[in-house]
Amino acid sequence: MSKEIGITVKKDENFSEWYTQVVLKGQLADYAPVKGLIVLRPYGYSIWESLKSSLDEKLKSLGHENGFLPVLIPQSLLSKESDHFAGFTPEVFWVTHSGDTEVGDRLALRPTSETLAYSMYSKWIKSWRDLPLKINFWNTALRAEIKATKPFLRTSEFLWQEGHTVHSSKEEAEEEVFTILETYRKIVEEELAIPVIKGKKSEKEKFVGAVYTTTIEAIMPDGKALQMGTSHFLGQNFSKPFDVKFLDKQNVETFAWQTSWGVSWRLIGALIMVHGDDKGLVLPPRVAPIQVVIVPIYYSPQDRESVLGKSNVIKEILQKKNLRVHIDSRDEFTPGYKFNNWEMKGVPVRIEIGPKDLAKGKMVVVRRDNQKKMDLSFENTETGILDILGEVQLGLFERAKQFLTEKIIEVTDFEKFKSEIEKGGFLHSPWCGDTKCEEKIKELTGADIRVIPFDGKRSNAPCLICKNLSKTDAIFARGY
Amino acid sequence: MSKEIGITVKKDENFSEWYTQVVLKGQLADYAPVKGLIVLRPYGYSIWESLKSSLDEKLKSLGHENGFLPVLIPQSLLSKESDHFAGFTPEVFWVTHSGDTEVGDRLALRPTSETLAYSMYSKWIKSWRDLPLKINFWNTALRAEIKATKPFLRTSEFLWQEGHTVHSSKEEAEEEVFTILETYRKIVEEELAIPVIKGKKSEKEKFVGAVYTTTIEAIMPDGKALQMGTSHFLGQNFSKPFDVKFLDKQNVETFAWQTSWGVSWRLIGALIMVHGDDKGLVLPPRVAPIQVVIVPIYYSPQDRESVLGKSNVIKEILQKKNLRVHIDSRDEFTPGYKFNNWEMKGVPVRIEIGPKDLAKGKMVVVRRDNQKKMDLSFENTETGILDILGEVQLGLFERAKQFLTEKIIEVTDFEKFKSEIEKGGFLHSPWCGDTKCEEKIKELTGADIRVIPFDGKRSNAPCLICKNLSKTDAIFARGY
Repeated sequence: MSKEIGITVKKDENFSEWYTQVVLKGQLADYAPVKGLIVLRPYGYSIWESLKSSLDEKLKSLGHENGFLPVLIPQSLLSKESDHFAGFTPEVFWVTHSGDTEVGDRLALRPTSETLAYSMYSKWIKSWRDLPLKINFWNTALRAEIKATKPFLRTSEFLWQEGHTVHSSKEEAEEEVFTILETYRKIVEEELAIPVIKGKKSEKEKFVGAVYTTTIEAIMPDGKALQMGTSHFLGQNFSKPFDVKFLDKQNVETFAWQTSWGVSWRLIGALIMVHGDDKGLVLPPRVAPIQVVIVPIYYSPQDRESVLGKSNVIKEILQKKNLRVHIDSRDEFTPGYKFNNWEMKGVPVRIEIGPKDLAKGKMVVVRRDNQKKMDLSFENTETGILDILGEVQLGLFERAKQFLTEKIIEVTDFEKFKSEIEKGGFLHSPWCGDTKCEEKIKELTGADIRVIPFDGKRSNAPCLICKNLSKTDAIFARGY
Repeated sequence: MSKEIGITVKKDENFSEWYTQVVLKGQLADYAPVKGLIVLRPYGYSIWESLKSSLDEKLKSLGHENGFLPVLIPQSLLSKESDHFAGFTPEVFWVTHSGDTEVGDRLALRPTSETLAYSMYSKWIKSWRDLPLKINFWNTALRAEIKATKPFLRTSEFLWQEGHTVHSSKEEAEEEVFTILETYRKIVEEELAIPVIKGKKSEKEKFVGAVYTTTIEAIMPDGKALQMGTSHFLGQNFSKPFDVKFLDKQNVETFAWQTSWGVSWRLIGALIMVHGDDKGLVLPPRVAPIQVVIVPIYYSPQDRESVLGKSNVIKEILQKKNLRVHIDSRDEFTPGYKFNNWEMKGVPVRIEIGPKDLAKGKMVVVRRDNQKKMDLSFENTETGILDILGEVQLGLFERAKQFLTEKIIEVTDFEKFKSEIEKGGFLHSPWCGDTKCEEKIKELTGADIRVIPFDGKRSNAPCLICKNLSKTDAIFARGY
């Protein structure tokens, strides 16, 4: 592969440029003509499809159903919950005309759909028999980004899902918040092989309009934090302005309790950053669009026929195990070119078969994650490949988990905080609970409270800033 | 079921009101706060999911991949192909602001994505090795509707898929156009059980920017035509302005040949109209979200336990055959209410089991399409239900096919044309090929050329209007 085709910078030398090259050269995505927007190419979209199908299945098994909401929300509706509206106002795209005609009430492109969904829910819900109502929407959200576009991480339109549920009791709604957070953790840790920390957001960082926001937070190789998914307890903050109420079993009219939650294609950004290496993408098998690529090696027409024949047999064996297998039989490229190409695209396992292998009754198997090469006899195809894929999935998670563990640093002293934050990482520090101290830390170091972990307080040291009694420990970091 | 809950008008007495009631009371969709827009409730969305998954599988097996395009297209890009732009201008929604900032080049909400997709394709395609490029996009399109909203048929935003392919030869591109049209025919006839006529659109009715448009056209119970899907041959009409070119095997730079094609949730509208009856929706088993509903009948706790137990056994047997089965075990509703409810929602087969059935080792099976009731012994559960579902699917298609056949009327005389068109139907008439005569017919009768059928000319009669030699036969009808 020529220099221009492969990745030309090292991940730890120029992380940002490396990321862009992996996205563009790996044919995951490309910049759209409008600043801030990207297009997903089939390879990138198929990672989203994998992820979507895993999560969709889990949500359905928990009793959620899917629905569809239009992208246009009238300004009057969006502004009904005032905190919520104020939070999104600066980044809303506004439609003012259809054809040459001015629309009356300006129309917002959905920054999120709480307001629209709940205006509908208030019509649909009459009694306790209609609850719980648990609907999920696979769509996009639009929030104008003014900073430089970063595919999957900073774009003005992004693919996501937004779930919106309604419950007859506070307890049931809160249980939903945590069930969803745990579902997100599972998807991210088990499918994407990225370890996360579960916890709450601070008042300052919570979703505008929520009572509280729970989050799963991951660390990236540069030591910065990435929010991977959030699940919000809305209490009755929306049910009151939107009149979402029901007749309970005693025939008493009651405002409902609500939740909302979402994950976006930002997870693909995390996947790229956490697992990728100098050669490009490294995909965990569970979400890889192609899990096994077979590269047949031949130089004569006779060899071509026998090697391709065997490749097809192997492909069929593996497909019967529901594996996603591709044979790269393009005659116009050399095996070397193909190796590099599929490595750049992160395919977890490569099988090479040449005439000599054929004679010996075996293939060569190469793991993408650690580049290890091994022989595998034909009779062990099925179990051999399944085992290796399992090892890759686990290996990626464990490597990332070790990195996270090393990067969580307990800091109880603000001077140490200031020097540690420069190195990147999750600083586990005591906090009094006051937004003013949180803002001071942000101002002086650029670090936010990313998550107040559920596993609680580790020290009795005082707040870093005001020196008052700490109420909790929080994880501070600079973030994406 | 009380009058207000069930459908209160007869299909053949007030078709339009009947349609609206089926949509709203069947909980398929509801009106959004903005005129022209609708929300899909889970039951309606799951029909779309069924349809989508069937078509997606077919498209993938033909070598298509999915991608993602943003919804915003700059005006400058949209206007590059002038016919195309002029065609869509009156119905485009325009974004002029993000937050308080005016955007420079106004942004259109996609009415269709040819222009955006091809501006990307021109960057991605370099040589013959990159072709064919066959990408499909599952998204929505936005076209402002000024007439009264009609769910699934006339809405300003609609769910659809748009395929955009690029080929190295005219022949290959044209083959794609017809492969897709045939794929659409199969989906519509085999999954939706709606018979269609395949053919071309006239110059006047073709897609703006296409060389020609092929279509599948269906007839609705009121005798009006509904366009079910279109597949366009774009020739080089877009590849030239958008610079979609490639180096061929002789290293010569050549403009590519393109196609685009789409079907929308309008298919759900057709499904409702064609198969529904006075009790509500009638769904063909292949696309029904619930194919079999089991209604257990009991009046004592002991009966409840045994009947529900058997219901679960039957459900499991059928689920093993990949059937979508639901047990309605709600204690707060009577069996009669449940029967009516699931009939309104169009579930193809209902199973009733009570204590007496249990004693006799059988269940009662009721077909939704013809209301026939029959006993089925427990030991024949699997084959019995599969057979019945097959009969319902076929029965619905054949009934609709017979209606279509009866409604295709050969007319060679304009006086007869004018009286026949008032009754509704597909008028199969000779046409000279001149747009002026087509426009004259539209002006005098309200009928368009819906499709110029591939099965060709039936008579040698002259054109209805100019009396010149007819070039072809065309099917004229009033349309949705």
